[in-house]
Amino acid sequence: MTQADAPHSLPLDGTPAAGPSSRSTLVITAHAGDFVWRAGGAIALAASRGEKVTVACLTFGERGESAKAWREGRKLDEIKALRRDEAERAAATLGAEVRFFDAGDYPLVATAELTDRLVAVYRETQPDVVLTHPTEDPYNGDHPAAGAMALQARILAQAVGYPGEGEIIGAPPVFYFEPHQPEMSGFKPEVLLDITEVWETKREAMECLGAQRHLWDYYTDLAVRRGVQLRRNAGPNLGLAHTTMAEAYMRPYPQIAKELA
Amino acid sequence: MTQADAPHSLPLDGTPAAGPSSRSTLVITAHAGDFVWRAGGAIALAASRGEKVTVACLTFGERGESAKAWREGRKLDEIKALRRDEAERAAATLGAEVRFFDAGDYPLVATAELTDRLVAVYRETQPDVVLTHPTEDPYNGDHPAAGAMALQARILAQAVGYPGEGEIIGAPPVFYFEPHQPEMSGFKPEVLLDITEVWETKREAMECLGAQRHLWDYYTDLAVRRGVQLRRNAGPNLGLAHTTMAEAYMRPYPQIAKELA
Amino acid sequence: MTQADAPHSLPLDGTPAAGPSSRSTLVITAHAGDFVWRAGGAIALAASRGEKVTVACLTFGERGESAKAWREGRKLDEIKALRRDEAERAAATLGAEVRFFDAGDYPLVATAELTDRLVAVYRETQPDVVLTHPTEDPYNGDHPAAGAMALQARILAQAVGYPGEGEIIGAPPVFYFEPHQPEMSGFKPEVLLDITEVWETKREAMECLGAQRHLWDYYTDLAVRRGVQLRRNAGPNLGLAHTTMAEAYMRPYPQIAKELA
Amino acid sequence: MTQADAPHSLPLDGTPAAGPSSRSTLVITAHAGDFVWRAGGAIALAASRGEKVTVACLTFGERGESAKAWREGRKLDEIKALRRDEAERAAATLGAEVRFFDAGDYPLVATAELTDRLVAVYRETQPDVVLTHPTEDPYNGDHPAAGAMALQARILAQAVGYPGEGEIIGAPPVFYFEPHQPEMSGFKPEVLLDITEVWETKREAMECLGAQRHLWDYYTDLAVRRGVQLRRNAGPNLGLAHTTMAEAYMRPYPQIAKELA
Amino acid sequence: MTQADAPHSLPLDGTPAAGPSSRSTLVITAHAGDFVWRAGGAIALAASRGEKVTVACLTFGERGESAKAWREGRKLDEIKALRRDEAERAAATLGAEVRFFDAGDYPLVATAELTDRLVAVYRETQPDVVLTHPTEDPYNGDHPAAGAMALQARILAQAVGYPGEGEIIGAPPVFYFEPHQPEMSGFKPEVLLDITEVWETKREAMECLGAQRHLWDYYTDLAVRRGVQLRRNAGPNLGLAHTTMAEAYMRPYPQIAKELA
Amino acid sequence: MTQADAPHSLPLDGTPAAGPSSRSTLVITAHAGDFVWRAGGAIALAASRGEKVTVACLTFGERGESAKAWREGRKLDEIKALRRDEAERAAATLGAEVRFFDAGDYPLVATAELTDRLVAVYRETQPDVVLTHPTEDPYNGDHPAAGAMALQARILAQAVGYPGEGEIIGAPPVFYFEPHQPEMSGFKPEVLLDITEVWETKREAMECLGAQRHLWDYYTDLAVRRGVQLRRNAGPNLGLAHTTMAEAYMRPYPQIAKELA
Repeated sequence: MTQADAPHSLPLDGTPAAGPSSRSTLVITAHAGDFVWRAGGAIALAASRGEKVTVACLTFGERGESAKAWREGRKLDEIKALRRDEAERAAATLGAEVRFFDAGDYPLVATAELTDRLVAVYRETQPDVVLTHPTEDPYNGDHPAAGAMALQARILAQAVGYPGEGEIIGAPPVFYFEPHQPEMSGFKPEVLLDITEVWETKREAMECLGAQRHLWDYYTDLAVRRGVQLRRNAGPNLGLAHTTMAEAYMRPYPQIAKELA
Repeated sequence: MTQADAPHSLPLDGTPAAGPSSRSTLVITAHAGDFVWRAGGAIALAASRGEKVTVACLTFGERGESAKAWREGRKLDEIKALRRDEAERAAATLGAEVRFFDAGDYPLVATAELTDRLVAVYRETQPDVVLTHPTEDPYNGDHPAAGAMALQARILAQAVGYPGEGEIIGAPPVFYFEPHQPEMSGFKPEVLLDITEVWETKREAMECLGAQRHLWDYYTDLAVRRGVQLRRNAGPNLGLAHTTMAEAYMRPYPQIAKELA
Repeated sequence: MTQADAPHSLPLDGTPAAGPSSRSTLVITAHAGDFVWRAGGAIALAASRGEKVTVACLTFGERGESAKAWREGRKLDEIKALRRDEAERAAATLGAEVRFFDAGDYPLVATAELTDRLVAVYRETQPDVVLTHPTEDPYNGDHPAAGAMALQARILAQAVGYPGEGEIIGAPPVFYFEPHQPEMSGFKPEVLLDITEVWETKREAMECLGAQRHLWDYYTDLAVRRGVQLRRNAGPNLGLAHTTMAEAYMRPYPQIAKELA
Repeated sequence: MTQADAPHSLPLDGTPAAGPSSRSTLVITAHAGDFVWRAGGAIALAASRGEKVTVACLTFGERGESAKAWREGRKLDEIKALRRDEAERAAATLGAEVRFFDAGDYPLVATAELTDRLVAVYRETQPDVVLTHPTEDPYNGDHPAAGAMALQARILAQAVGYPGEGEIIGAPPVFYFEPHQPEMSGFKPEVLLDITEVWETKREAMECLGAQRHLWDYYTDLAVRRGVQLRRNAGPNLGLAHTTMAEAYMRPYPQIAKELA
Repeated sequence: MTQADAPHSLPLDGTPAAGPSSRSTLVITAHAGDFVWRAGGAIALAASRGEKVTVACLTFGERGESAKAWREGRKLDEIKALRRDEAERAAATLGAEVRFFDAGDYPLVATAELTDRLVAVYRETQPDVVLTHPTEDPYNGDHPAAGAMALQARILAQAVGYPGEGEIIGAPPVFYFEPHQPEMSGFKPEVLLDITEVWETKREAMECLGAQRHLWDYYTDLAVRRGVQLRRNAGPNLGLAHTTMAEAYMRPYPQIAKELA
Repeated sequence: MTQADAPHSLPLDGTPAAGPSSRSTLVITAHAGDFVWRAGGAIALAASRGEKVTVACLTFGERGESAKAWREGRKLDEIKALRRDEAERAAATLGAEVRFFDAGDYPLVATAELTDRLVAVYRETQPDVVLTHPTEDPYNGDHPAAGAMALQARILAQAVGYPGEGEIIGAPPVFYFEPHQPEMSGFKPEVLLDITEVWETKREAMECLGAQRHLWDYYTDLAVRRGVQLRRNAGPNLGLAHTTMAEAYMRPYPQIAKELA
């Protein structure tokens, strides 16, 4: 049983303590594009509140999601550089810092070393919120591998007995972002996040990813559809002209609340 | 497909619009004691914020949860009066209004008429939050019957075409409270509500229920245990002296959020 | 245990025996619009092969899915007539016959009488394929009620001991069509039906439903998305210009096959 | 996200394009006997249509399913040779080619190297259909290990960025064959394949496996039982004299269809 | 919450208190044949220990499982008489008493009146063990209806406040017997009961059911197969000559034990 | 398919054959304290019947459950020695032998070598009963790792072809003990073991674990609560003065029974 009894700044209800700079979000993803398509809205929202967002990107998606570049005859290093550049521009647009682990994709293999590097990031960034892939995806083995390491590292980082630099962390809430084929991956929207106010920023970040241009409209449509679902679960629509844009998430751990709402 | 496009005062993020009096909570239960044991903390919290709480109590629990009174040789009407009196005092202690439907328990039978009466309560109280029993409980058939009618009435109350007094409602979030044997009823804590600040009030309300005195300590222990779980999911404990008390809930519908936390 | 040993024309592999007129499809739905939005493609495909399609429409959706008409101040009978007219035109467009049961919606209540009327339709139409609502939908109680009666009537219609006109039926395969919020309803696409060649017909049928104009584009987008999913599960895309349109279904009973494909 | 946009001969509905030789089936199994007991009918059917069937047999089952030989005092190499010989005769009977990977059983350990060898087989054989073990089996760890590698290799083989010989593949449908204790392994028959016409061939292939003679009747009985189930799900029985033999399969991915049947 | 605090003879570990006559088993089934095919072994075992077994048979199966008689042109009353006679002879063979409720099958409709009659049987027979249908069966609606009433009546019979003759009961363990298509009904064997020593009696009872002669061998094969599974879960086979016969059951409530075994 | 046909002393119903010394229990745990908190009652019961109990403790819990010692500035070796000492005293109190594998915790990594060492323990101790962690626990990765190795080694130890010392084993029943957050770990009590008569011994053993003093009362409360649940599932309470203490378990494999009770 883990004990995590050290003083820590996270209040029980998860709301920001005081100034915006006290909050930290950690996003752990398999490939270079994932944080943009799946969590760009959440990242932009946090950044817009002045919070710090760190993206730990385990691979460049150089083999598994760069088909266009391979068909154009690019070499591995070129493709990595291309994907890194795109991702960095997208992260800057959203207001996040991105770090590449270059662990190799397709397959991304879970190792103790890689997990240990993630523990270090947890302890350094002291996240109040963690976003990652769900641990089931029958269409892509890298996503569950990244998600599983993210969860394991979060637990290890809480243990005072686990060696390494930095302070141990508390137990920050985890949110799974939406996989490409949600119904086939056991994904059920448990949180619908209203991203309307940062939608233009997310679209701009998506457009940094030229290698996957065919996905721009796909994820725009998804945001519209999740927005419709948000309105149907939140109360009456506020007029037809209003289009709510949303992202869907799951919670593997219970929500801590001061009020039911 | 339901359409619920009328103007309504519920903001998208579920937070109170302005003054505390604009919020309304509706609790729908099978028996006279359920709202105290299972949701007394949530009710007291809402009341302490100045919000209105209405408890729709479908039966007095006169057959199914009044064993002591039957063994003492009381008659049906006496028992109903006794349970009503206890429940009214408990509700007053928590700060809620309780309404009895006297629909007959053990078994509580779901009917269109009873559901229709619930639709009227929804439209009258215009709830921002709904609390009820989960729809699975292998130890008590009345609880699922009450929960199922609560859910159906909530949908019907949204339809402009459904006849009856009052304005249609939006789609308020629903919270299932914890059944007596959670693991056997498919209950998984999805929200842990911190009720520490109203704990004394809940305990006082429980002590109004003299007919079930053996449950006072049982539900105190449960609140302690859910509090331990809350701390383990929320971050480090804030000192050993501090005892957090909590209640657990499930969400059958997705949470609507402006921020991941 | 049911026994269904009588001679019957359905071959084991479910393929049409000889001419197209030997095949029959039965669609059982709760509301007037359901067969268009959810199964219009499957209906049009069957009709285009010269097969007979019968839609058993249990209600007009007069209360639950006619919000616009109610807000315009229409009366119940007017609304029923309006929905009937729209549905008949949509059915004619698709090539199906529609029958109304006028059982009253919101709530649609499952009864033995209504089920018995469905048994008669099964025995009369001798379906080779049955389409209906899945039996879980937390947003609409009428859909599960219709689906449950469709399944029960199918079993009763197989029993030589169940009274009524007509020949007993075999055990035709059942397909559940997609609910409005699939992930929240336990819906997982098990069959992706390519409806590209009849897409224009489906769109035309949708446009017969003026009372729900806001859904035309919604279900067009859904068909595009299910088409993308079809291509990702079927093999490589056949060129970017090609847009596959699809509908998703579940099978509550096992598929019978002569070949794995 | 994987992209698989290259030209490929698989039509959308999964039916053979033209001549029988264009179709290819790949069977990936843990032990030497698995393909016979579990998929012998499907293999014989494909072969009888003139299609190519390749069996990738990861181990000889030398430790885990050769108890009789060990008790007779045979040595490891002898046992491997014995199992290879039996399996080759069975494969020849069914009309398939079998390849042995000799990866060592009990336990069969999933590795990147073994998965890579499977990628090569996928790209070489360009399967239209894949058969393998389900990924859950509480009685045998080798079966899930084989199934998991089969699924991962299928995804990797689709990526143009994954290195290796041969053309990338499309997304062929996958069928799980039946484990020994289906209810304990989460196995639910989703496809019942009529193997009546090749039953004699399957029985003959089973009889090549002298080391497991006690299973001959066991799997005959299973085929009878699955045949009874097929008839109960397909329509009326066609006379008592007729015995349908069947095999059961699950589909982890949705079926692609041109028609509901 | 139900309270069941009255004195009662059931010891905590469920073992017989003293003489064999103190134990009572109650079997609640939908149709006349169910108790023979599904629980004949358990009944014969209990009877062979001198215990009392009561079968509450809600219908004769006159419509749903008497196809042969209907095809021979029998009338409803004749068929009921035939099924009653067969069932009485089978019960006598097994050593049980059978009571017919004649509630009408296909469909068997759950009602408060029928449930109340079951409460009376519970209180009269004071069962130590209850056997009934599982509450899910996509092939037969009567079975779940019977199982659901059996469970509800068991709970009502525990309440001192529920009116009626007889003493309230404790909380006897419930066992679901095996449905005809277990994998399709969510049935997972949780208890494998060794019925070898009473197998001849069960076979003899099955042969009383002339109307369903084709099932004699079917259920013999099932007993063999469940016996094989028993041996694989219990330890090594005790020689090939030995054939263990078994029945499978599920437990909807936890087992109470004095020892793990 | 595994064959386990060798002679063996385990009778089919799992009861002790003759003298108490013929029974053996094997407990496989991740950390030094697990066997006490989670299975101390079952161990003490078995020991009190004169049976042999062996605890295979894969790690000392030196990193993951020794937070207090780390905060006091202890070194790794000191902490291991401390935990070993505590665990040995607790085991002696319960009447069990404990063996330490010192495999390193947080994370405990599953390896073929460690599994092989467990196979040797199985073959040496020839267990009639196995207790271990369930294979799901979102709060602790070491527990599932230990449970998975325990299950795999049990299967390997049954195979005559798996090399190593000692006789092969049968298929002893497995019991999962309760994780710290049962509802979050998919844990459902399937067996409630009455440990009242050895409760004082379990409490004494818990008090050997000074490093986790805060858990003494936590697990006392849990035993009370499981005892309440036991009484509610077993029949009427036997007077209010009587306090039943219990432990909860799950069974991943079916129970073998000679009688339903």
